Amino acid sequence: MNARLLKPKPLTREAFAPYGDVIAADGVTPRPINYGATERYHDLAGIDCMGEGGRAIVSILRSTPRAFPLTLRVMESHPLSSQAFIPLRGRPYLVVVAPAGPFAPAKVEAFLASGEQGVNYRRGTWHHFSLSLEAPSDFLVIDREGPGNNCIEVSLEDFDPIILTLKAHAHAASGL
Amino acid sequence: MNARLLKPKPLTREAFAPYGDVIAADGVTPRPINYGATERYHDLAGIDCMGEGGRAIVSILRSTPRAFPLTLRVMESHPLSSQAFIPLRGRPYLVVVAPAGPFAPAKVEAFLASGEQGVNYRRGTWHHFSLSLEAPSDFLVIDREGPGNNCIEVSLEDFDPIILTLKAHAHAASGL
Repeated sequence: MNARLLKPKPLTREAFAPYGDVIAADGVTPRPINYGATERYHDLAGIDCMGEGGRAIVSILRSTPRAFPLTLRVMESHPLSSQAFIPLRGRPYLVVVAPAGPFAPAKVEAFLASGEQGVNYRRGTWHHFSLSLEAPSDFLVIDREGPGNNCIEVSLEDFDPIILTLKAHAHAASGL
Repeated sequence: MNARLLKPKPLTREAFAPYGDVIAADGVTPRPINYGATERYHDLAGIDCMGEGGRAIVSILRSTPRAFPLTLRVMESHPLSSQAFIPLRGRPYLVVVAPAGPFAPAKVEAFLASGEQGVNYRRGTWHHFSLSLEAPSDFLVIDREGPGNNCIEVSLEDFDPIILTLKAHAHAASGL
């Protein structure tokens, strides 16, 4: 077994484009509204939750921080909808994804999201659950309620290990 | 003309029920998910943006703080959709609403929302734009893009003035 060390890259719209949307004001030209009192950064994500009899719902997910390096155990995808995560406490977090389609462990990528960046996974994108780095973090989630099986999981224990590390931890963990 | 002084009440689900939803984890029993790493506070708002050919969209609104006491000038309602506002920086803000139907100035109410409470205005609820108190505040907004006129405004200058005050300001502003 060959363990693969996975280091997060900075999250940018360009790098994340194969997987979905980055939800952030940064880099977007706003529209002034409310008689100049407000700037509107308009329509930042492709919300795709209404197919096959579904409806878009809003939930809050409270995520417990993990210890790193972290051996990834499982990833999931939603074949019937997009799923958006927006951090509510301004804390950075890690996003781990792989392209939609047959799961390809060699294509798993990790991104470090700032506390001002949300993500919207496109229908079918493989992803790990959002990984808090420090204190427990709340995320607003926009996904789907409705008929059908909208959560497929893949166990990473069937593949060579993927070990997620924060760059700064690489030395301390003797190469990990 | 009789000016009416409007003081915000604390935002609770019960008090806000005539207008829509309070989006918050507080008071909701979560579901454990992600093998215990996450708590899910499920389906917190009635998202109603898909009628009449519309689709739900996600935007960020950046709101400039206002000076108080504040004479209200205009309120709006969305006859074709709900509209949700969730604060992204944990800062409190003011919510001003009146019941759906013919606009009744005597029924205008104000609520002080904590930085951990979002609101979802039900279709037709009259509301002021979200009022930041201190620093500029970002809100995640879930509303509708689609055909039809989905924004009706009413000018408050046609009625006796409504002056929104923070409780602590009441004395300093000589009765306002």
